[in-house]
Amino acid sequence: MKFLSFSYKDTPTYGVKVKREDSAWILPKLFEEFGEDKDYPKTLLEGITKYNTLDFQEIVRTLVEKAEADDNNHLFKAPFTEIEFLAPVAPPNNLICFGRNYKKHAEEMNNEVSLTVFTKANSSLVGDEESIDAFTDLTSELDYEGELGVVIGKEAHNVQPHLALDYVYGYTIVNDITARDLQKSLKQFFLAKSLAAPIGPYIVTKDEVPSLNDVSIVTKVNDEIRQDGSTRDMILPVEEIISEVSKYVKLMPGDIIATGSPEGVAAGMEHPDFLESGDVVRVSINGIGTLTTYIK
Amino acid sequence: MKFLSFSYKDTPTYGVKVKREDSAWILPKLFEEFGEDKDYPKTLLEGITKYNTLDFQEIVRTLVEKAEADDNNHLFKAPFTEIEFLAPVAPPNNLICFGRNYKKHAEEMNNEVSLTVFTKANSSLVGDEESIDAFTDLTSELDYEGELGVVIGKEAHNVQPHLALDYVYGYTIVNDITARDLQKSLKQFFLAKSLAAPIGPYIVTKDEVPSLNDVSIVTKVNDEIRQDGSTRDMILPVEEIISEVSKYVKLMPGDIIATGSPEGVAAGMEHPDFLESGDVVRVSINGIGTLTTYIK
Repeated sequence: MKFLSFSYKDTPTYGVKVKREDSAWILPKLFEEFGEDKDYPKTLLEGITKYNTLDFQEIVRTLVEKAEADDNNHLFKAPFTEIEFLAPVAPPNNLICFGRNYKKHAEEMNNEVSLTVFTKANSSLVGDEESIDAFTDLTSELDYEGELGVVIGKEAHNVQPHLALDYVYGYTIVNDITARDLQKSLKQFFLAKSLAAPIGPYIVTKDEVPSLNDVSIVTKVNDEIRQDGSTRDMILPVEEIISEVSKYVKLMPGDIIATGSPEGVAAGMEHPDFLESGDVVRVSINGIGTLTTYIK
Repeated sequence: MKFLSFSYKDTPTYGVKVKREDSAWILPKLFEEFGEDKDYPKTLLEGITKYNTLDFQEIVRTLVEKAEADDNNHLFKAPFTEIEFLAPVAPPNNLICFGRNYKKHAEEMNNEVSLTVFTKANSSLVGDEESIDAFTDLTSELDYEGELGVVIGKEAHNVQPHLALDYVYGYTIVNDITARDLQKSLKQFFLAKSLAAPIGPYIVTKDEVPSLNDVSIVTKVNDEIRQDGSTRDMILPVEEIISEVSKYVKLMPGDIIATGSPEGVAAGMEHPDFLESGDVVRVSINGIGTLTTYIK
């Protein structure tokens, strides 16, 4: 299933993608109309927190079946042409980023490989197809980083690697927008990483991603391929990332860990071609979708 | 007013300290009994988000007057002997820390003075009188940092210093617990800072803190004074901190910025006396209160 949060008729809500159709079932409407639980989740984060991934999918599947059988079911659907995608959730612990996880990217950034974990501010989150500022008053080196985002489904503290995938709810796409000059000058990454955080369009439940061994991650700027990586080149695989981070941080349902970027960022080019007004960045991850961001 | 979040009869709730009494008015009960707004805030964060500081105080003042006139008002009070203090809020953008803001502390840590901003995970927040782990499996250098916490009352982006205090809701106390060895080895501070984050006991509204020019901050470990500082020694005052951070991060209602620690941390001692099992740390800020933390 592909869960999403979106704004429809000027109201924020959430839903699940309709199969083979560019529209979303509006889940609060399905709960109201066909549900038994009147204290149903009001946001996607509440749903992820309240139910485990299998239970939530089962509940949603039942609601969608009832809706499909209803003659007036167009009332419960929002066509993608009429919605604005929002960040699927605001993670309880900010958007957590696990850096330097692809050897060639660490090399292009002249970094020693070590455990590098920081956060991006939740208030910088934007959804798919969103325009972000060029931030020319703050940076002249605005860069992209296409990354696989892992969504946590239940509280995870001190999790062993071989059990770590049990704690995963699903996956999403993160564009870890970075002001390279600020990243260098300020040393702590939080400010340089908190200008913008495109994420989405969906949280794809983990049953739709049978293996993470070789998932392709491609980032294009204006249709030019800049990053063409695969999760097979991760230094630490997803299980180890969750295990490592959960040693220090109690991960909560709805938390998201961006798992690092492959090589090909602007800062790594001989003549860096940083982002500027009018650019379009598209991060595509096989089986998970494409996240599009416009630079104003 | 002193707002607090707490657990009472095994249920998390929030309230306001009763004047000259060690107990709290349970605000959801006052809203239910005497309020007009049936869609009242269910958490302190919702209250701070929904109302500005003056409106919220006025609403609460009216509710408390009605409660005081009620013969059965003991039903709406929770004695401190029967509550557990919780972190007053979970800030939308994690607990934001503004580091290296006292010259002598920067010196004792051999740091150049530069803009150093990072976050601590919300899931590490604990309230007053709470016991935290000694984390001996992760660190042998667990340290304290007593800090003034500034609570944001309304969305703040690109705020000018002379207007910055308008965006302040109130103040609290933060003990920025830090694993020094991890802080050094991992470089990005997030993990080393996310083991524990004691905060509280209250959010004290800003009208009770007439000036921040010379507010004393004292940290004791087992009754030995370790830090004896004053906000007059801040490199950047609170207005400048808010202004600086808000250039990069859109601050949200309920966000908290810890404003840096004065000198006297264990790591700065000639023979560092780090925290260990059985220690008690008390951070006292004049007019704001005392935050007590036990090391298990």
